[in-house]
Amino acid sequence: LIWVFCLIYFAYFKFGLRDFILTCSFSSLIRQNIFLVLRDSHGLVQVVIPQDESAASVKKILCEAPMESVVQVSGTVISRPPGQENPKMPTGDIEIKVKTAQLLNSCKKLPFEIKDFVKKTEALRLQYRYLDLRSFQMQYNLRLRSQMVMKMRDYLCNLHGFVDVETPTLFKRTPGGAKEFVIPSREPGRFYSLPQSPQQFKQLLMVGGLDRYFQVARCYRDEGSRPDRQPEFTQVLSYVHLSLTGSAGFLQEALGTAQGTVKAMCVPDGAKFLTRKDIEHIRKFAADHFNQEVLPVFPKANRNWNSPVAKLIVEERGSGFMRRMQAQEGDVLLLTAGEHPRACSLLGQLRLECADLLEARGVVLRDPARFSFLWVVDFPLFLPKEGHPGELESAHHPFTAPHPSDIHLLSAEPEKVRSQHYDLVLNGSEIGGGSIRIHDARLQRHILETVLKEDVTLLSHLLQALDYGAPPHGGIALGLDRLMCLVTGAPSIRDVIAFPKSFRGHDLMSNAPDFIPPEELKPYHIQVAWPTDSEAEKSSMNDPRHPES
Amino acid sequence: LIWVFCLIYFAYFKFGLRDFILTCSFSSLIRQNIFLVLRDSHGLVQVVIPQDESAASVKKILCEAPMESVVQVSGTVISRPPGQENPKMPTGDIEIKVKTAQLLNSCKKLPFEIKDFVKKTEALRLQYRYLDLRSFQMQYNLRLRSQMVMKMRDYLCNLHGFVDVETPTLFKRTPGGAKEFVIPSREPGRFYSLPQSPQQFKQLLMVGGLDRYFQVARCYRDEGSRPDRQPEFTQVLSYVHLSLTGSAGFLQEALGTAQGTVKAMCVPDGAKFLTRKDIEHIRKFAADHFNQEVLPVFPKANRNWNSPVAKLIVEERGSGFMRRMQAQEGDVLLLTAGEHPRACSLLGQLRLECADLLEARGVVLRDPARFSFLWVVDFPLFLPKEGHPGELESAHHPFTAPHPSDIHLLSAEPEKVRSQHYDLVLNGSEIGGGSIRIHDARLQRHILETVLKEDVTLLSHLLQALDYGAPPHGGIALGLDRLMCLVTGAPSIRDVIAFPKSFRGHDLMSNAPDFIPPEELKPYHIQVAWPTDSEAEKSSMNDPRHPES
Repeated sequence: LIWVFCLIYFAYFKFGLRDFILTCSFSSLIRQNIFLVLRDSHGLVQVVIPQDESAASVKKILCEAPMESVVQVSGTVISRPPGQENPKMPTGDIEIKVKTAQLLNSCKKLPFEIKDFVKKTEALRLQYRYLDLRSFQMQYNLRLRSQMVMKMRDYLCNLHGFVDVETPTLFKRTPGGAKEFVIPSREPGRFYSLPQSPQQFKQLLMVGGLDRYFQVARCYRDEGSRPDRQPEFTQVLSYVHLSLTGSAGFLQEALGTAQGTVKAMCVPDGAKFLTRKDIEHIRKFAADHFNQEVLPVFPKANRNWNSPVAKLIVEERGSGFMRRMQAQEGDVLLLTAGEHPRACSLLGQLRLECADLLEARGVVLRDPARFSFLWVVDFPLFLPKEGHPGELESAHHPFTAPHPSDIHLLSAEPEKVRSQHYDLVLNGSEIGGGSIRIHDARLQRHILETVLKEDVTLLSHLLQALDYGAPPHGGIALGLDRLMCLVTGAPSIRDVIAFPKSFRGHDLMSNAPDFIPPEELKPYHIQVAWPTDSEAEKSSMNDPRHPES
Repeated sequence: LIWVFCLIYFAYFKFGLRDFILTCSFSSLIRQNIFLVLRDSHGLVQVVIPQDESAASVKKILCEAPMESVVQVSGTVISRPPGQENPKMPTGDIEIKVKTAQLLNSCKKLPFEIKDFVKKTEALRLQYRYLDLRSFQMQYNLRLRSQMVMKMRDYLCNLHGFVDVETPTLFKRTPGGAKEFVIPSREPGRFYSLPQSPQQFKQLLMVGGLDRYFQVARCYRDEGSRPDRQPEFTQVLSYVHLSLTGSAGFLQEALGTAQGTVKAMCVPDGAKFLTRKDIEHIRKFAADHFNQEVLPVFPKANRNWNSPVAKLIVEERGSGFMRRMQAQEGDVLLLTAGEHPRACSLLGQLRLECADLLEARGVVLRDPARFSFLWVVDFPLFLPKEGHPGELESAHHPFTAPHPSDIHLLSAEPEKVRSQHYDLVLNGSEIGGGSIRIHDARLQRHILETVLKEDVTLLSHLLQALDYGAPPHGGIALGLDRLMCLVTGAPSIRDVIAFPKSFRGHDLMSNAPDFIPPEELKPYHIQVAWPTDSEAEKSSMNDPRHPES
């Protein structure tokens, strides 16, 4: 596995130097009171416990040390007897004949074994995170993360002259900053806010002439209303756009409404491999999760026997459609209609569902060892504000630059303006995104005040900075946790973070967030506003840690 | 200065390639409407504005661009005419004959010039930090910081197998955590706390088998009561210890009290160079700042004509003393007496005062270009708790290991136990410190509960972790801001931080901390407890940003 064992071999075979001291290892496994496996950050090695009377004290120490205790041994590296080699172990050809041993720290009974594939609940892993970290998977994940970040730094800093600059986290709230944690200060009523990202500082550093800046930055988002509180990016993909003037019912309805579209996707070999049950599953999925109808359309007309609409599409009106979709005979098309964002989201999900179904039927689709990247571009600059018809909000954020060819549309038709925002996708998951920013103060002010109707006073320093000779600039932010998750194949981003929070935002190991005695809140001029709801109050009071219980 | 200009030379002289595009530079200086100096992150270059009619538009752009605007030019690199070279400029031998020019962004009138040595108040610099960053000094400081940290990372990560691990900042308060910012959560009464350092996590990572961990970590300390809010370390040095049983008044008094000591330092060549006025200054300094008496003692007996005590020390009782101090004839000794910590602190300051005075008299003492490091060791493990006689507090923190030879003293005489804490000092300033930690759970519990009488419930996870086979471990933390300050010679740590807070903890640029509307505090179940003092309330109300004004 790692250098210490190369050192063992090297020392043993090259120099005949066979004495060896292995320090601070965790005792991993003991067999027949003769063989003991030790583990350190470099890997595993087997040691042979001396059996003769003169070494009784050494034997006692090693046999009685509880599992996962910390021991130090010295001894001689020897070849294992023929036939006793372990081909599955990197050090499987050798073992250490122990001469001296010392117990550095004992380990009490473990809540779970430190072994691969041992089933442990996530809650237990988080509560005893300092033990969970000893597992091969966590060690691998954290070490790989360290090395990957180092490589990124090397690339940016050493090869391309980027400057690593630390930006503040005790900052000020941003407009629409509903997701920003607040931090009381010692001045009554005044709070700092934790930034969702170094958004503004990135731009101010460009104004400040840093030219090329990077940072591995901690970002804070209070995703209070969502069950999973670690930062999560959601991917949006575009599909083939289709406009049909039609006789078809739900299609017509969709096209009749504002934002209504008809969209379709082609599932290669779908007609060949997907069963009727699969198609039903797809339709049910769309209904349950998106409240949408999905119409399967088979290129071979007679397969559409139970859908006059589908038959119509294939035979008469749809010849242009079929050609455009480039559908082959073995394919199936999935059509849906409705509001544009919902139709797109549905098809995005269906794409993945179909991939799963096809792979279950033996079709080779996704190579798990591959890294497939793609850029998503040409986002709209604005989106309709949910629940506020006629109002717009930024699709990405208000500082994103419009496409230069669309600037003339800003006043009259802002919803048609494309943005210079780009997302980076890896194997179907969004791992980062960025944009070219607005460097013209007037344009930025117009978008903030006139189009978005935002309060510009919170951003006055940024607007002012743009007026002092801000160069054209842009950037990108990668979600490092998510990237590491994809690279390691970990099931959750919690598995690539040393001390993650639970899905409710709790640190199960140390019990944070925790109650704080009122006198410690006094210097910050705040007090807790306990909910008047008697249930909530009762449940808090019953908690022995509640200051008033 | 930098590579772009090497590129200019290289291209010019080696390949005859003389055309050049210089993009995104700040316009720095214009002379006679003919010469314009442009600045980018690589340095300065002079461009020659075309004067002929056909280039009128180019001339217009470059002459009318306000100072610090962002321009892009293309042109040809040529030698400056003989006699017009500028030896003080790295690119002083060449200039660029401009062909095309473009104004990318204009700059409005600056609050101060971007020039070296221009006097700007600190407040103005902080308010317009994005402009202040353009100065040579800030550019140099931040770029050097980036490179130094990269070198540290390379050393630790690539050369020595250390793992870069990120630890949480939304944590839980620690005992005695009076300096920890709190962060309300969405659960009534529950708060996160920002950690003063990754203290506990460092240790838990060792328990977790990471072996070698490092982090460039953000630490938070609410130094509310201190005017200077950026983290600041105070240095403590040890001096020659002296015990005199004496007839002298203040000495006797000092020796009579608990913790009373008599301490002295030797100022080499002090008698030769320090004037009577200097000695008076020293005595006044001690009286004003430390409320202590200082007794100068000259090795040449007759110089002590105005102090019988000093005379006594030199002539009769003090022969052992003089020998021990190794005082030469031209030296002067400074004696003080009092409580040990105060006497030491005083002499520590006097040492620096004397150095300043001697250097003012022409003595060569400190080489400003040198980096002089030293380790401070053998600190006591505990100190008396101020204002609480009979009680002890940790000198460093409660997790510091006692010196193995002193463990037997823990029960009966804890104040005599030395710790395994070490401080690192550079040119007289403390830049870091660390310790070997306690890895034995029982010992840790004893120190927390029995000696320090701390509440162990807040640390139960750490105590538990030690019981699960914690290896012996220790570490060190360097104050990066302070280190950068020393290395760059900056007058303040604010000069090595991109966006520092003012001395009162304010971000003058964005106005943080700021008032927050009550409805934004509602989800966090807190409300502001406005001070009842009418003055404070009045002053808040008069602030136009106050939510209720």
